[in-house]
Amino acid sequence: MNKINLSRLKSTFYTSSNIGRTCNGGLTRLPLSMEDKKMRGVFVEWLKNAGLKIRIDDLGNIYGRREGYKNDLGGVMMGSHLDTQPNGGRFDGIMGVLSALEVIRTLNDYNVKTRRAIEIVNFTAEESGRFDIPMVGSGVLTDKYSKEFVYSLKDNNGLSFEESLEEIGYKGEEKNRLTNFNINYYIEAHIEQSVSLEENEKSIGVVQGIEGVTNLTVTVEGQSSHSIYPAHKRKDALLAASEMILSIENLQKQFNVNPYVGKFKVFPSKPTTTAEKVEFTFGIKHYEDDIRNETITFIRRQLQKIAESRNVYLKISPFWEMTSTKFSNEIINLIETASIHNNYSYQKMLSPAGHDARYMNDILKTGMIFAPSNQGLSHCEEEYTSFSDIEKVTNTLFYIIKHLSS
Amino acid sequence: MNKINLSRLKSTFYTSSNIGRTCNGGLTRLPLSMEDKKMRGVFVEWLKNAGLKIRIDDLGNIYGRREGYKNDLGGVMMGSHLDTQPNGGRFDGIMGVLSALEVIRTLNDYNVKTRRAIEIVNFTAEESGRFDIPMVGSGVLTDKYSKEFVYSLKDNNGLSFEESLEEIGYKGEEKNRLTNFNINYYIEAHIEQSVSLEENEKSIGVVQGIEGVTNLTVTVEGQSSHSIYPAHKRKDALLAASEMILSIENLQKQFNVNPYVGKFKVFPSKPTTTAEKVEFTFGIKHYEDDIRNETITFIRRQLQKIAESRNVYLKISPFWEMTSTKFSNEIINLIETASIHNNYSYQKMLSPAGHDARYMNDILKTGMIFAPSNQGLSHCEEEYTSFSDIEKVTNTLFYIIKHLSS
Repeated sequence: MNKINLSRLKSTFYTSSNIGRTCNGGLTRLPLSMEDKKMRGVFVEWLKNAGLKIRIDDLGNIYGRREGYKNDLGGVMMGSHLDTQPNGGRFDGIMGVLSALEVIRTLNDYNVKTRRAIEIVNFTAEESGRFDIPMVGSGVLTDKYSKEFVYSLKDNNGLSFEESLEEIGYKGEEKNRLTNFNINYYIEAHIEQSVSLEENEKSIGVVQGIEGVTNLTVTVEGQSSHSIYPAHKRKDALLAASEMILSIENLQKQFNVNPYVGKFKVFPSKPTTTAEKVEFTFGIKHYEDDIRNETITFIRRQLQKIAESRNVYLKISPFWEMTSTKFSNEIINLIETASIHNNYSYQKMLSPAGHDARYMNDILKTGMIFAPSNQGLSHCEEEYTSFSDIEKVTNTLFYIIKHLSS
Repeated sequence: MNKINLSRLKSTFYTSSNIGRTCNGGLTRLPLSMEDKKMRGVFVEWLKNAGLKIRIDDLGNIYGRREGYKNDLGGVMMGSHLDTQPNGGRFDGIMGVLSALEVIRTLNDYNVKTRRAIEIVNFTAEESGRFDIPMVGSGVLTDKYSKEFVYSLKDNNGLSFEESLEEIGYKGEEKNRLTNFNINYYIEAHIEQSVSLEENEKSIGVVQGIEGVTNLTVTVEGQSSHSIYPAHKRKDALLAASEMILSIENLQKQFNVNPYVGKFKVFPSKPTTTAEKVEFTFGIKHYEDDIRNETITFIRRQLQKIAESRNVYLKISPFWEMTSTKFSNEIINLIETASIHNNYSYQKMLSPAGHDARYMNDILKTGMIFAPSNQGLSHCEEEYTSFSDIEKVTNTLFYIIKHLSS
């Protein structure tokens, strides 16, 4: 069977890695930023040169379509996202789009005609680093967020999602959404972003599903006071919040969940004034929705106890939630078959992170292929996946797409 | 003996409380801001109307001088500062300046001629809320900071101290500094900012000295990672810093010191990315310099242990230090005598906070009179001292000034 062209794929990565490059070799390519615009421009050129028909929908999602000769069968879609977190990496999301492009190019190399149409997609604003909410492009397509809600999201400079979309010239038409086309399958190649493949020395992750997650926003309000005010009488929001996040950390041992604290802002944060208010976000991930919910109930009570003992006011609000999902068995089996065929080591695994595939799975037969992440790092400049592994993942994707579309 | 005019003093406070007033009735009058400029303008008018001779020095300190008839004896100075913290109160510093003005006005009312000259001073940037460093005006006069260092301090907008001084028109001349005049005494009336007078139901605090303080800046550097990275493998700077500040809190019980954490900034502080870096400041106060130093040695070791156990890098740098100080016995005795004379309840006490008097004590015979703070609150909008207490403090100040200058 034909194989993809690694040196061509490397050159595609090279181009991408220089659009929004940071001093330390990462990428800052925030959704709908000038860097994103530049990357989109290059990407659209690539799609045109590969003979694909371009569509932009009202969320800025970019599609490239390669017609089949039996289009009524329903198409096969592959892709991911080209945007990054601030000081993020060169592979998260990007690998899924560039490997999909390489699959199309390889099909072109060998003049492969397929029965089903094949589409490639770059979803808008998968990353939350600018508008706080993740998976925006795929989320609206699957009714997770309304278009109005998403359009009104604002970045730190007060610029809205809609304004940014218009500014970079990627506000397309609603009729171009993938949901208005006959598509059956969605396959996303992605880096693992954790250590499982690396530790087990496997090249291909056969993803069974995605863990659910609950993200909450916590506001702790005490009273600020001069540093000289007696310590035992203070209502110090920062000390209370510190105790809270250490108790959130403990959930890992107590419930075998993966907890994390992300945003953490202290007010007024002045040298001789103790904290009046802290706002932080935390999340809890687990594949069993029941265990996740039980953990949330438990930690809500814990935080309330801490707030009472420290005499501060506590508010916990939902921020973002995603139930767990199980991917299509047809695709899971195909990834396994491809790995065996190509003689690549593989393992079945869960995804701890949300991806556009999470939402696509609600409307299409969906699956994900994982590549190892060096030291499990991602959303940082050190993010790294070797080209040897990227080649294997791309060949696996090629095998699956060819099989599904033939 | 004559008494001060409370209704006049109230009206002075009323004017001051409306320059930089916050929604909740506090004050935001940052050093060298437009609000500070406005307050200075009003203050200078008041000084002129009281017949005082105005001087502005190169740090923006404002002096008003009432000549004596035996000026070679050396003058008596009183004052404090008119600037505030962001969302600060109406009394901290301000009471010292406005009560001094009331003392001058009362001397004028009764045509009192004094042997010694009397000066009133408004020190620049006693509060650290804009340029991070406290007691700037008095600090340069007493060689705690160089003028060059202070001039180059920058606020959050990158505006320097010197530029701000020029912008509001208060960059005066070095020859006007109090150190170029023959001054012997400095008396500062101030709110206590803690709960001791209130709890003991005393009106006058006879301040014996000021506790020493060590302020340190701590930088914790770990590695940011995607929220899905296994919790037990993260190098989360925020969790490490949280453990550190709780261990700083514990010093209160272990060493009987008063510890506090002020500034606390988390990077990058994004919902799905764990913390790479935390920068925070903390301080330790105690009257015994030995105990303070011993505590600092202990906590440095503790923080290092936490850093090692959490696999993060730790840097501790000196931020601001002040040794403890003992005030002039002559003034301490005078405050006591005045309280007995006026039949005011009083107590001897230490000041836990630094004040301009701390630095003045290095070059002049210095003392402080404290008024009770409601609930001990200060550096916040709720800061409050009753006019009944302000009247008593001002009468005490009047007694002392009259006594020293006659």
